[in-house]
Amino acid sequence: MTAIDIQDLRERLLAGDRAALARAITLVESKRVDRRAAARDLMEAVLPQTGKALRVGVTGVPGVGKSTMIDALGSNLTAQGRRVAVLAVDPSSTRTGGSILGDKTRMARLATDPNAYIRPSPSSGTLGGVAARTRETMLLCEAAGFDVILVETVGVGQSETAVAELTDFFLVLMLPGAGDELQGIKKGILELADMVAVNKADGDGAARARAAAAEYRAALHILAPASPLWTPPVITVSGMANEGLDRLWAHVLDHHAKLEAKGEITARRRRQDVGWMWAMIHERMHQRLHGDSGTRERIRKLEADVAAGVMTATRAAEAVADILGV
Amino acid sequence: MTAIDIQDLRERLLAGDRAALARAITLVESKRVDRRAAARDLMEAVLPQTGKALRVGVTGVPGVGKSTMIDALGSNLTAQGRRVAVLAVDPSSTRTGGSILGDKTRMARLATDPNAYIRPSPSSGTLGGVAARTRETMLLCEAAGFDVILVETVGVGQSETAVAELTDFFLVLMLPGAGDELQGIKKGILELADMVAVNKADGDGAARARAAAAEYRAALHILAPASPLWTPPVITVSGMANEGLDRLWAHVLDHHAKLEAKGEITARRRRQDVGWMWAMIHERMHQRLHGDSGTRERIRKLEADVAAGVMTATRAAEAVADILGV
Repeated sequence: MTAIDIQDLRERLLAGDRAALARAITLVESKRVDRRAAARDLMEAVLPQTGKALRVGVTGVPGVGKSTMIDALGSNLTAQGRRVAVLAVDPSSTRTGGSILGDKTRMARLATDPNAYIRPSPSSGTLGGVAARTRETMLLCEAAGFDVILVETVGVGQSETAVAELTDFFLVLMLPGAGDELQGIKKGILELADMVAVNKADGDGAARARAAAAEYRAALHILAPASPLWTPPVITVSGMANEGLDRLWAHVLDHHAKLEAKGEITARRRRQDVGWMWAMIHERMHQRLHGDSGTRERIRKLEADVAAGVMTATRAAEAVADILGV
Repeated sequence: MTAIDIQDLRERLLAGDRAALARAITLVESKRVDRRAAARDLMEAVLPQTGKALRVGVTGVPGVGKSTMIDALGSNLTAQGRRVAVLAVDPSSTRTGGSILGDKTRMARLATDPNAYIRPSPSSGTLGGVAARTRETMLLCEAAGFDVILVETVGVGQSETAVAELTDFFLVLMLPGAGDELQGIKKGILELADMVAVNKADGDGAARARAAAAEYRAALHILAPASPLWTPPVITVSGMANEGLDRLWAHVLDHHAKLEAKGEITARRRRQDVGWMWAMIHERMHQRLHGDSGTRERIRKLEADVAAGVMTATRAAEAVADILGV
C-alpha cells in the first residue's frame, strides 16, 4: 500500500464497497506504525456511522456445529434482507495458520452470498490484541452497512469473555448428551449466556437434545440470578436441518427489544467501550513488557524469584514498575 | 512512630510477640512513603519464615453466620493446640468505618483466646489495595507462628476472587433454603468453592439445610469439572451449635494432604504469588491514574467521551498511555 487517502476509503466504505471494506480491515490489522496511525484516523472518521447492527456472539466446543448453524442462520437472515457479517475471535489461529479457507468452505452458502461477508480471526498474538482488532473490524462492517454481526469463537482461554464484551447477545451452542457429559462445560460459560441452544436436535439426536436442554435449564435456574429484563432461554436447534433457527432469532430480537426499551443495550455498549479503552491500555503495557527480549528476560527472572520465594511480590512489582517507568 | 528497627521488630515478631505483630501490621498498612519502604524491608526479612500455615478463605452473605462459625471453628482449633489468626478482606470497611469492635464482639470466644488473633480488614480504598495488605498481614501472622489463617470476606464486588487468590482452600457458607432462594447465588461463587457448607443446620433448619445441600450438590455436579485431586464436598453445619465443624475441618485437612502430595499446594501458591506481583503493578498504575485530581478529571473526561461515542476507545487508550508515560 502507498499513502492512504482516508477520506476516500471512508466514502467507499460507507457506500458498501466490499473491496474498500477488505482494505480497511487489513489497515486496522496492520502492525506497521504508520498504518496504525492511519487506522486510528479511519476509525475516528467512521465512528458516527457505527453501532446500528445487532451484535451476536456465538460460542461452542469444536464439533458442536457452529459453522453449519451460522451458515444456515446467516442465509435465513440475508433472505429476509439483512446484511450479515461473520467475524471470529480465535487467539489460536496464529498457531494453526489461520482458517480463511476453512471458514469459507465450512460456510458454503454464506461464502457466495452477496449480502454476507466472512472474515476470519486476525492472527496477531494475544487475546487482547486479537479481540481489539475484531472489535474494530465489527465497527467497519457496521459502517459498511452490515446490520447483523455474528462473532464466533472457539473458546480458547478467555475468548468467550472477550466476545461477550464485544456483543449485545451471547449465544452458547451445546451438544446433545446429558448427565456426566455436562461436566465438560467450561467454567463460567453458562453465566455469560443470554441463550443456550442445544444443536444437532435432529434424527436420533432429538430426544437426547431435549434431555440435555432440560439439564441446562435446571443449571441456569440455579446459577443465573433472574433479571427483571431477561431470563436466558434454553432451546433445541438443528443447524444441519435448519430447524429452530427462526425461533432462535426471535429470541435475539425479543432480547434486543426488551433491553433497548430500558436503554440497556446502549448502556451495555457504553460500558463495553470504556472497558475496551482499559483493555487496550493493558495491551499496550503488555507490549512494553514483552516487546524486547531483554525486558522479557528480566521479567521472567522476577517472576521466577517470586515463585521461588526468594523475592517478595511487592519488591518484584516495584522492579516491573521501574521498567515501565510508572 | 519514630525510626523503625526492622531487625528488632523481626526478632520479636518471630518470637510470637503480639505487640510486635500489631506494630508490624500497622507498618504494612501505612501509606506514608518512609513507612512503605520500612514495610518492604520487613516483609523481605520475614519471607523465609512464612508459608507454614493452612490458609482458608471463608465467604457467605451477611446473615449466614460467618462470625459465629469462625468463632466456634477457631476455638475448636486452638483447643487442639493450633494458633489461629482471623483476617478479613472487606473493601467496604472504609465506608462503614471499619469493624474492629464488631469483629471482636461477634467472635467473643476467640477475642479473648491467647492462641487466636483477630484483625479486621484494612480500610484503604480499592479491593486490590485492601487484599494486598491482607496478604502481607497473613504472611506476618505466619512469621509470628500462627498455623491456621482464616480469611473472611463479605463478598463485595470481586472480593471472593481476591480471597481465593490468597488462600489454599475456599469455603463458601450458604443459608438453608431451597428452590428459588438458590437463585441469589452470586455469579461465579460456586466455581471458586473447594467446599460448600450450609450453615444453621440446627433445630427447625436441619431439614431445610439438607434439602439445600442436595441442590448445591446437583449444581456443583453440573458446574465444576471433576478434578482428579478434589471434588468439592457439600456439607451441613451449625456454627451456633458447633455441629459438623470437626467434619468440616477434616475436609480441609484432607484437601491439603491430597493436593500437597502432588505438589499442588506449592504450585498454587507460586501462581498466586506471581499473580499478586501483577496485581500490585496494576494497583500502582491505578494510583498513578487516580492519585491527583487533575489526572483523575482528565481520565473521567476520556471515559465520558468514549461512552458518548465521540472518541474511539483506541484514541482514549493512547491518551491514557501518554499520561502514564508508557
